[in-house]
Amino acid sequence: MLAECGKTKVLCTVSVQDQVPPWMYKRNAGGWLTAEYAMLPGAGQPRKPRDGRTGRPLDGRSQEIQRLIGRALRCAVDLGALPEVTLWVDCDVLQADGGTRTTAINGALVALYDALLWMEEQKQLPKWPLRGLVSAVSVGLVGGEAMIDLDYDEDSSADVDLNIVCAADGRMIEVQGAAERQPFSIEQLQSMLQLAQDGCSRVRELQQKTLGL
Amino acid sequence: MLAECGKTKVLCTVSVQDQVPPWMYKRNAGGWLTAEYAMLPGAGQPRKPRDGRTGRPLDGRSQEIQRLIGRALRCAVDLGALPEVTLWVDCDVLQADGGTRTTAINGALVALYDALLWMEEQKQLPKWPLRGLVSAVSVGLVGGEAMIDLDYDEDSSADVDLNIVCAADGRMIEVQGAAERQPFSIEQLQSMLQLAQDGCSRVRELQQKTLGL
Amino acid sequence: MLAECGKTKVLCTVSVQDQVPPWMYKRNAGGWLTAEYAMLPGAGQPRKPRDGRTGRPLDGRSQEIQRLIGRALRCAVDLGALPEVTLWVDCDVLQADGGTRTTAINGALVALYDALLWMEEQKQLPKWPLRGLVSAVSVGLVGGEAMIDLDYDEDSSADVDLNIVCAADGRMIEVQGAAERQPFSIEQLQSMLQLAQDGCSRVRELQQKTLGL
Amino acid sequence: MLAECGKTKVLCTVSVQDQVPPWMYKRNAGGWLTAEYAMLPGAGQPRKPRDGRTGRPLDGRSQEIQRLIGRALRCAVDLGALPEVTLWVDCDVLQADGGTRTTAINGALVALYDALLWMEEQKQLPKWPLRGLVSAVSVGLVGGEAMIDLDYDEDSSADVDLNIVCAADGRMIEVQGAAERQPFSIEQLQSMLQLAQDGCSRVRELQQKTLGL
Amino acid sequence: MLAECGKTKVLCTVSVQDQVPPWMYKRNAGGWLTAEYAMLPGAGQPRKPRDGRTGRPLDGRSQEIQRLIGRALRCAVDLGALPEVTLWVDCDVLQADGGTRTTAINGALVALYDALLWMEEQKQLPKWPLRGLVSAVSVGLVGGEAMIDLDYDEDSSADVDLNIVCAADGRMIEVQGAAERQPFSIEQLQSMLQLAQDGCSRVRELQQKTLGL
Amino acid sequence: MLAECGKTKVLCTVSVQDQVPPWMYKRNAGGWLTAEYAMLPGAGQPRKPRDGRTGRPLDGRSQEIQRLIGRALRCAVDLGALPEVTLWVDCDVLQADGGTRTTAINGALVALYDALLWMEEQKQLPKWPLRGLVSAVSVGLVGGEAMIDLDYDEDSSADVDLNIVCAADGRMIEVQGAAERQPFSIEQLQSMLQLAQDGCSRVRELQQKTLGL
Repeated sequence: MLAECGKTKVLCTVSVQDQVPPWMYKRNAGGWLTAEYAMLPGAGQPRKPRDGRTGRPLDGRSQEIQRLIGRALRCAVDLGALPEVTLWVDCDVLQADGGTRTTAINGALVALYDALLWMEEQKQLPKWPLRGLVSAVSVGLVGGEAMIDLDYDEDSSADVDLNIVCAADGRMIEVQGAAERQPFSIEQLQSMLQLAQDGCSRVRELQQKTLGL
Repeated sequence: MLAECGKTKVLCTVSVQDQVPPWMYKRNAGGWLTAEYAMLPGAGQPRKPRDGRTGRPLDGRSQEIQRLIGRALRCAVDLGALPEVTLWVDCDVLQADGGTRTTAINGALVALYDALLWMEEQKQLPKWPLRGLVSAVSVGLVGGEAMIDLDYDEDSSADVDLNIVCAADGRMIEVQGAAERQPFSIEQLQSMLQLAQDGCSRVRELQQKTLGL
Repeated sequence: MLAECGKTKVLCTVSVQDQVPPWMYKRNAGGWLTAEYAMLPGAGQPRKPRDGRTGRPLDGRSQEIQRLIGRALRCAVDLGALPEVTLWVDCDVLQADGGTRTTAINGALVALYDALLWMEEQKQLPKWPLRGLVSAVSVGLVGGEAMIDLDYDEDSSADVDLNIVCAADGRMIEVQGAAERQPFSIEQLQSMLQLAQDGCSRVRELQQKTLGL
Repeated sequence: MLAECGKTKVLCTVSVQDQVPPWMYKRNAGGWLTAEYAMLPGAGQPRKPRDGRTGRPLDGRSQEIQRLIGRALRCAVDLGALPEVTLWVDCDVLQADGGTRTTAINGALVALYDALLWMEEQKQLPKWPLRGLVSAVSVGLVGGEAMIDLDYDEDSSADVDLNIVCAADGRMIEVQGAAERQPFSIEQLQSMLQLAQDGCSRVRELQQKTLGL
Repeated sequence: MLAECGKTKVLCTVSVQDQVPPWMYKRNAGGWLTAEYAMLPGAGQPRKPRDGRTGRPLDGRSQEIQRLIGRALRCAVDLGALPEVTLWVDCDVLQADGGTRTTAINGALVALYDALLWMEEQKQLPKWPLRGLVSAVSVGLVGGEAMIDLDYDEDSSADVDLNIVCAADGRMIEVQGAAERQPFSIEQLQSMLQLAQDGCSRVRELQQKTLGL
Repeated sequence: MLAECGKTKVLCTVSVQDQVPPWMYKRNAGGWLTAEYAMLPGAGQPRKPRDGRTGRPLDGRSQEIQRLIGRALRCAVDLGALPEVTLWVDCDVLQADGGTRTTAINGALVALYDALLWMEEQKQLPKWPLRGLVSAVSVGLVGGEAMIDLDYDEDSSADVDLNIVCAADGRMIEVQGAAERQPFSIEQLQSMLQLAQDGCSRVRELQQKTLGL
């Protein structure tokens, strides 16, 4: 699944491994889902060195993002309804121009849907485990005004950067907002959230179309 | 500076290093501030292995938290008004019982204030670089109701976990909210934010008292 | 540059860094070229863990391949005619079905050509440094007979696996042959080499077409 | 347990893990005890980078010290009389001013005693496994004269640095002496040992008082 | 087993471990053989830092060579005829002057023979698993002429560097040729291969003499 | 320099690097000496995995020993009288049967002497920097009696293990004694020290003979 948003391109794949992580052994608690996120070195300017070469530990930003992706998707799935498998979600950014984390979540949800369909065909699913679609957008406050889907240049000049992840009914699963230049008020947060919820519902329609739902 | 919140105890120190990170060399852009967060292995139950022993890369949760602390404190300081130094903020959790990341921010701000006073006495500061106090609290939604300063047991049963960092004027620097069990509505977010802003202003008073302001 | 060969897909990019490696500092010896090769975790079946996560050092096979790519491309370029830059060649396998290392070399050469054209436009090149095209193919001995461009299944059943890299005049830059099941005679090597040289010249035509030469 | 000696402060905790190390599996040989020692980055001047960040292997001095602590405490305990558990002894230096290794041992012994009492209350101990108290001091030769409990400045000017660990009956468990400036004679060693044994017996009295023995 | 070739000295040992690697557990597929190659830091000029110190991942050249040694020896042994053991082949270069990888293979084969004899004496071998001797030489093209057993200086001036590994019947197990300065023709490869096969048969005689066959 | 003591064999080399460590830059404080110690994997029974492979940090015992070797040799050399070089002392155990650390020191001193002679011939030494020979032995208490030069089996059954390093005048540079089974008295230490000093003087004679002094 190649998810695109503006010039940003993220390759999302889901692999099914017939094993749960060690801490779930023999608990009979269903399955697990884990996500990994990485940016290819040539995805942006300047080239970014690969994680893990030359003994450098994993880059903090990537780790933060992959934890977000994992939490968002685990919210979408009834893990207890899975067999004893681990779903590995890999999001690799081929080209980066703002919004890579939300694009990754949106694409990963579609890839996850496909993987679950495949498992169902293989008769591996006692019941359908997906609770509903999950979608994400990032919005920003540029010059005092809420704007959606910023590209890299707009993003750099935003005063506030807000990512939200929504469930199918529009309620929120995750909200992450950070002031880049100056603090923001509850009212400003309000207007950004409104915009973001609208954006999430538009993404949801695209996901449904892609999946033929 | 030993910050306590309930049974949680975090040791916060600030060290001044006469050097900026390599990417700031020769830019004449002032100083830098960076934070590290770690939990002592015996701080909670069960014992948590140390990061970096046995070649394990840095634990994702710690990395996420130390990035949050760094962002919050950098917002409080006019970096351009610092000389060419790096302020190292170390937050080590001696005992953990919920709210370690917000306790760390609150204590670190006080330790930072002390370090800046010391630099001023040494005549190292051309002007006072602190923009104002920064304080943080975590609130949760337990049984549909917003609650503040959860201990570990309450935290585990919360439906939503929200951390906010406020500037001195009450506006927000960072908002991080995640649904642990089920999604939340804008109204629920609203009531948690209200509670959190009140909490931040009470923390600010404690900080002022500690600093004798 | 996305290079494809059968179902194998390799994304090749070349980045120009305004710096040479430490061991070349102040030697006035031109530029350098280095290659990195990695397989995305979801590129094959089963999923392959990422290098460098969980402290695992770099996978031996990847390291061997990236050294091969680097040597092959350095043969194609007059490094002394470059300014003091490092050309970073990144080959990331998006989908794997045999022949990833030769596909990587073929695509990387094209990406390298593009990068050099861009440098020429920027007036960074005192003279054109590319000595000629370089192309690679892998051949195998299946059931006693030499075959070219094996997919994964054919590859697994081959008795011998041979990779060759050719210069523009058809002569060889690198030969790597390994018996997978039983040793091979000089005559068998001979017939594989013939087939490989033909394959390299066909690849060269494709490269020229892509580059509009 | 917070052990102090002059301005040196070491936090010592003992955690009980219901598992022995892999090499003891199925040997029915009782339990194990292992120690880890680290200095918090802000414990001394200048700030000391954390072990294990940026891929740096564990600092040699810390490793040497934690091996010493482990050996000293294992001498104090009849491991065969323990159930199949690992006792993790963590010594974290909060503030450093000379003698951190001996302060760590003295505090760790007290924390170990507490942990064993707790295990006894839990009915986990078939018999009391502690053979006796263990105490440690460091002495030095400053200007030809033996001195005990050096702070950091005295320590830096000492000609010889000697650490000894004593059993409850005053006999020695470990002796480590190193010439910092010039070699020492058997007579000088003799006088340092005398002083050290006296010091150990005074520490033992403090330990007994702390433990209410 | 200390293998020497000119001034090159490689210490080769084979250790028998009563365990197969995890991926072979419960497959009843016999045993495994794995090789490790390293150069002592003082083996050449200038001193080469040790792998694995200061967090540096394993040096690419060493990894490439140890993979070659492993493949070559696995070809010599019927792994299915081994009991469930891992044969660890360690090749440590004490002194380096060209040809270390081929000297390592030649010495390792002898050490392997010895280890198998020892296992036979211990009645650990249901049948003799060695298919035949394996030998290796490196040849080069210096000034257009094929030459064998180059020392370091000759090696540095060679246009082509070719390593071959032969089975007992003279057929090839592995061929690795790389142009160092300029590409080579099929005819040149041919003449180098001839020379190499002769060299391998001479090495085989030395191995037989050493083993008393 | 291959140092042997019983069946123990340690290869000791000294390399001269034209550079001091970063912390000595521009201090005009002479040179530096650093030691590394490692055991080849096949040196003992069972095979010992190499440090630094599979991301494992450096083995604690090796680190402790190489620090001891470095301290001992730095005591023997007037570092301020060296030019700005680093002397790298590498001690690699080829075969281990007790006493590897003391054998390493004894051999390293001889290799160091050779390296300094070579530097003198190269006119790199303003004055002769070696203060005198340094030698080391290990003694043990077996069945209540002091014994010297224990092999592996004796070592395993010793109650106390004591290593001492002596200067040329017989005075001590380092003493490390550890009770393996039961504590020891000052009298027992005394008798071991006597024996050790005698041993050191015999080693010194061997060193002088080897060096032709």
